[in-house]
Amino acid sequence: MPEERDFSTIYDACTRYVYGHYPQTPKQALAALAEYTPTDAKLDFYGEGDLFTDFEARIAEMLGKPAAVFMPSGTMAQQIALRIVADRSGRWAFACHPTCHLVLHEDNAYRDLHGLKAEIVGNQFRLLTLDALQRIDVPLGSVLVELPQRHNGGLLPTWDDLVALTDWAREAGIHLHMDGARLWECQPYYERSYAEIAALFDTVYVSFYKILGNVAGAALAGPADLIAEARVWQHRHGGRLFHLYPNVLSAQMGLDTFLPQIGAYHAKAVEIAAAIKGIDGIEVTPDPPQTNMLHIFMRGDADRLKEAIYDIAEETGTMLVRTPQPGQVPGWQKSELSVGSASLDVPTDEIAALFADLIARANA
Amino acid sequence: MPEERDFSTIYDACTRYVYGHYPQTPKQALAALAEYTPTDAKLDFYGEGDLFTDFEARIAEMLGKPAAVFMPSGTMAQQIALRIVADRSGRWAFACHPTCHLVLHEDNAYRDLHGLKAEIVGNQFRLLTLDALQRIDVPLGSVLVELPQRHNGGLLPTWDDLVALTDWAREAGIHLHMDGARLWECQPYYERSYAEIAALFDTVYVSFYKILGNVAGAALAGPADLIAEARVWQHRHGGRLFHLYPNVLSAQMGLDTFLPQIGAYHAKAVEIAAAIKGIDGIEVTPDPPQTNMLHIFMRGDADRLKEAIYDIAEETGTMLVRTPQPGQVPGWQKSELSVGSASLDVPTDEIAALFADLIARANA
Repeated sequence: MPEERDFSTIYDACTRYVYGHYPQTPKQALAALAEYTPTDAKLDFYGEGDLFTDFEARIAEMLGKPAAVFMPSGTMAQQIALRIVADRSGRWAFACHPTCHLVLHEDNAYRDLHGLKAEIVGNQFRLLTLDALQRIDVPLGSVLVELPQRHNGGLLPTWDDLVALTDWAREAGIHLHMDGARLWECQPYYERSYAEIAALFDTVYVSFYKILGNVAGAALAGPADLIAEARVWQHRHGGRLFHLYPNVLSAQMGLDTFLPQIGAYHAKAVEIAAAIKGIDGIEVTPDPPQTNMLHIFMRGDADRLKEAIYDIAEETGTMLVRTPQPGQVPGWQKSELSVGSASLDVPTDEIAALFADLIARANA
Repeated sequence: MPEERDFSTIYDACTRYVYGHYPQTPKQALAALAEYTPTDAKLDFYGEGDLFTDFEARIAEMLGKPAAVFMPSGTMAQQIALRIVADRSGRWAFACHPTCHLVLHEDNAYRDLHGLKAEIVGNQFRLLTLDALQRIDVPLGSVLVELPQRHNGGLLPTWDDLVALTDWAREAGIHLHMDGARLWECQPYYERSYAEIAALFDTVYVSFYKILGNVAGAALAGPADLIAEARVWQHRHGGRLFHLYPNVLSAQMGLDTFLPQIGAYHAKAVEIAAAIKGIDGIEVTPDPPQTNMLHIFMRGDADRLKEAIYDIAEETGTMLVRTPQPGQVPGWQKSELSVGSASLDVPTDEIAALFADLIARANA
């Protein structure tokens, strides 16, 4: 039996990356962060100090909310928002899509840590719809809307549908919470400011790693009293750390470096989708991509596709796509492709040729 | 009315510090960490990778436990240990001292997040005793013992008392948890390895900031199955971050840099206590200090003492002691003095002269 090939060795040896940003070692990343950090930046203590105050004010302003709080993770931020609403309203249920982060990726913390109840509605391969929400027959504390829906290739509702959904919830007295883990990536589709998008919601969570390339970190924005209470819950979660300056500074660097590129990333994603969707054995969604993310479905055996990706990486120095995962249709595998700064440096016609080669190798 | 003087401006302008380590700006700290970081250190992802595995193995070995998990904070680590024990035993009460971190400094997270019940026993100015524990008449899941007791100047039970207390709990089937936030500082007193001290307990929490100068971070060590479950709860708390390498590397640097100095810090604390306790208007506890920490009680008005500390700092460039806090006895204020690397550079006779000067100024 051949030895298992090590992904990270192959990945690190590449010089070109069709997805994401260029990789950095911890030493490189820390040196870059030290370089970026202003000489007069002062230490924070337990989330206090100018570094925090200024950053949180910047986020609150970008999102058009009275207040924002920096937190170590979105897992913490979102549970806290929903918990506060439940405490205040006495309604412990929240509505969400089947692919909601809280129900798929947090070991049921919403339930086991906070006693919240998830009302999971809608089709996992489609957007969360107003229709689906209206069929819920328990009193809801919150509705959670993920913009864009990551598990659906970064799918976004039209502006009108989003307004209709949020209007309904607002009129029903239901708290509107946005899972904006990738909100930064929505701007090219809506062509509206982040504040205009956020205005449809009571609270908004945003993330600073992912496209912003940060170490780790998130923010929750909303009404001042709710954010003040969120700070207490952050403390209870063990998230008010002695120092968080590496995270705050890295988030700041991400906003300065990568946010201005979101338009270019989106345009590249649209270009890539158009160039590869005609290849026999490839399907893409959304078509065209609405953010800088798309899902690529590839015909072929999962292992053979993986080996072919590794072979292409070794032969050409180009990491083409993430290891495909089994999808719904037998014989078809799925990969998420998120365009970042490294993607821009690989010509789209070369990307298309490499994908054609990949399918050919895996189906030879 | 005179303008409020800004502590951090005065502190930053000093060149000598009688307590703690030398201050660093975020830029300096990040540059030092980048310098320290090995070139071949690899990125961690969600707490996985060699960086984590190696560090956690190092901590487990130091503490003589089968397993350890790195966490962002002690607030997270300790709640999680107690919660797992409660889930398993069905006993939701834990015994602790009145100055326990969980009851004083975590916004009652143990109660509001986990539904635990604190049985607070003993005299707040004395050590937690076996007698006090034996008077509790509810079934206990855990006993939490803080070594050393920070709020009592780093007080430590004798080895025999500690053995008696832990023997009793073990025989009663009660889980023994050590709040070892400052366990590193106990070694000179017990003259035993960390593993020998930790062997009296089922689970041990240690901290990497404080004397180790880390950004933020903690570890929980104990049986492999409990630590595996703790990782799930860490995730639920929102503490499994995308990257934690700045924290892990900084903890590693702290262990390499400061841990070998603990003996010297303790010796200096003993020297300082001996040199200042004869000053009229000063009392110290413990006498002699059992760790590198002591509490200094100063006669005088709180504001006048503070102003005198600031004056001395501006005149001599020496930050003598933390801003005194009101104590139990009217007219006496309390400061915690924790000896660190900066303390070693200030001659003890000068420290004593400055304390004498401080008391004289504040009582003139």
